[in-house]
Amino acid sequence: MRLLRNIGELATCPPENPQHDAGLIRKAALVIEEGIVAWSGPESDLPTEFEKTDATDCQGNLVIPGLIDCHTHLCFGGWRGDEFEMRLAGASYQEIAAVGGGIASTVKATREASADQLTRKAARILQHMLALGVTTVECKSGYGLDEENELKQLEIYRVLDAQQPVELVSTFLGAHIVPPEYTEDREAYLDLLIDVLIPRINRDGLAEYCDAFVEAGAFTAEEARRLFEAAKRQGLKIKLHADQLSSGGGASLAAEVGAVSAEHLEYIDEDGISALVGSGTVAVSLPLASLYLGERYLPARRLIDAGVPVAVATDFNPGSAPSFHLPLAMMLACLNQQMTPQEALMGATSRAARAIDREQRIGSLHAGYQADIVIIDAPSLNHWLYHFTPNACRRVFKNGAEVVLT
Amino acid sequence: MRLLRNIGELATCPPENPQHDAGLIRKAALVIEEGIVAWSGPESDLPTEFEKTDATDCQGNLVIPGLIDCHTHLCFGGWRGDEFEMRLAGASYQEIAAVGGGIASTVKATREASADQLTRKAARILQHMLALGVTTVECKSGYGLDEENELKQLEIYRVLDAQQPVELVSTFLGAHIVPPEYTEDREAYLDLLIDVLIPRINRDGLAEYCDAFVEAGAFTAEEARRLFEAAKRQGLKIKLHADQLSSGGGASLAAEVGAVSAEHLEYIDEDGISALVGSGTVAVSLPLASLYLGERYLPARRLIDAGVPVAVATDFNPGSAPSFHLPLAMMLACLNQQMTPQEALMGATSRAARAIDREQRIGSLHAGYQADIVIIDAPSLNHWLYHFTPNACRRVFKNGAEVVLT
Repeated sequence: MRLLRNIGELATCPPENPQHDAGLIRKAALVIEEGIVAWSGPESDLPTEFEKTDATDCQGNLVIPGLIDCHTHLCFGGWRGDEFEMRLAGASYQEIAAVGGGIASTVKATREASADQLTRKAARILQHMLALGVTTVECKSGYGLDEENELKQLEIYRVLDAQQPVELVSTFLGAHIVPPEYTEDREAYLDLLIDVLIPRINRDGLAEYCDAFVEAGAFTAEEARRLFEAAKRQGLKIKLHADQLSSGGGASLAAEVGAVSAEHLEYIDEDGISALVGSGTVAVSLPLASLYLGERYLPARRLIDAGVPVAVATDFNPGSAPSFHLPLAMMLACLNQQMTPQEALMGATSRAARAIDREQRIGSLHAGYQADIVIIDAPSLNHWLYHFTPNACRRVFKNGAEVVLT
Repeated sequence: MRLLRNIGELATCPPENPQHDAGLIRKAALVIEEGIVAWSGPESDLPTEFEKTDATDCQGNLVIPGLIDCHTHLCFGGWRGDEFEMRLAGASYQEIAAVGGGIASTVKATREASADQLTRKAARILQHMLALGVTTVECKSGYGLDEENELKQLEIYRVLDAQQPVELVSTFLGAHIVPPEYTEDREAYLDLLIDVLIPRINRDGLAEYCDAFVEAGAFTAEEARRLFEAAKRQGLKIKLHADQLSSGGGASLAAEVGAVSAEHLEYIDEDGISALVGSGTVAVSLPLASLYLGERYLPARRLIDAGVPVAVATDFNPGSAPSFHLPLAMMLACLNQQMTPQEALMGATSRAARAIDREQRIGSLHAGYQADIVIIDAPSLNHWLYHFTPNACRRVFKNGAEVVLT
């Protein structure tokens, strides 16, 4: 048992709260017992049974649930720093792809890299994420795009999940783009995904989600429908990259197929918003991708005001969002999407937990939740998201145990 | 003597180069002798006389001149995190000021804080800046706004300049806003600045620059002219906060009075750009202020293309730019102002040095320059500004001596 006392502000982030209410408590305390939050509340209400518990003094700092990055492309070969200059000179994401850069170059580098190289690279990034207070990460395949290399990515996630403290949630994104060797026969690639990869992933328990990128240049809604039907038959849950670069009915498709989450949605239209209301699908906002691409941002205010839950994630990947800095994404959600600090925090905790179907276990610090806890060097949530520093995270507990940060 | 070898990419940033050319050299080396860069160039050209010098292996990393943050409000009491939510809800900078928040609340907190409290707070921030690779910082008064407290801020800068490794450049910003006790008699406040403070600052060598905030709600161009004439007579050089929130002819005023730099310029118009061309005045872009205020950005492309030097700085202050993360400001200059990585780096090195009249001594790594040197954990400049991490700075040398980072 451990008592965290002298918490300046505690954000409990209960999933049943509306997004604007992160359950903030001033002068709070929290008790951890066997990896679970046993009690949390105002310090003045601490039950006498806990008063003699070994105490950690939080020195008046902010305490939040471990952050959840619910959309990343964690494992990839190479980087694409030199495309940065091209994009700044005005080349579009699609134009860069057309000249052999973009996702295709990462696919090439990922195929060429060994599992060992990729594992070490992803492990280093997870260490950096953890040091920022991120304790759970969703991670997608989608840079292999053939049987061997899609499985290689998903196997790496399984290995890493067992090897280090950050909990990983794997998503199969074979339908990221049509790989170069199948551009003349898209059907054959879909057949490979549906007839070979999805059954194999199901058999070996290699992923929990199936995702697809529905966009001009990637996959059509009809192709995604076919893929998702197969995935659902094999027990995979659905995510969807939708309406990122154009309004293509992606949000409606997500609601129609019962997706757990719909991601990007920068170009969602009124029909899309209406489709998401009450659908149970979480909208995942990826402000770093908007910043890096110079594109519009998901209209978070309209979605939240309409009652749609909005998660905030990094989209970490080597092309359109080459940063894993989730607190920066949260700050951008405030400054460029008019989310309040409480909405942004809910977006990276309980709403993100919902986007990976874990909202009954993580993302909140109410009693009964897994004790994934972060102490932030700031007196309040407002102060933290306003005074941007390289890294304000001071201490991290995962399943109740303090993690040594590197 | 010390040899830095195995530099993956060296940015020499010569001030005579056009802004888009940061003088990049792949596979470079650099020799430090008595605090000065004795030689820099391709490692294959290293003169034999230096071959036996004690060598530091830069492991293929990027090496840049120590960064220069040429516009900060370093010393202040309190913070204003709770205004962040107000601003996100739509209140303007001017509206917050009108209800007693904004600069006025920082003035109150700065007056109430002791010199010792303020010194310790600013010293901690300088440590964090140094850890990011910032080796020179311009810092303004302007939160005292009376004789005692303006001098208190400037004295703190003098003490800190002597106490720690970051070189400070002090600017007197008594003309930040008209303080509450003088709102009915602006003339009397200007008289205080001109007749009492400027002579005292000159006598005690407390500042190198005189700055003024020319804007609705602050000072008129006519008031600033009067102030600057007095300042120049007393040997102070001129800086100017201009055209931040509206187009008020600030850039033209800066050129007219021979300002070393004109800052903000988000609303600069064509006449203003024309006035700056060839004037010798550096335009200082403050992208974090634009981000935090949700305001437009300085049109860096138009200025650079017209031949105006553009520096990039943080504007660190507790209201409109509560972050000292200069590399983040540089990334925003790329992403939101279409500056190239080389232009952004020149903006935070040689162009920033020009904005504080030190371009013959710092901001470049050509032979003869002060050895303020930063090793960045990235293989290239493009990679560094593209892959945003909390802090990629690994080692810092100030005047040739390695600094212990905390």
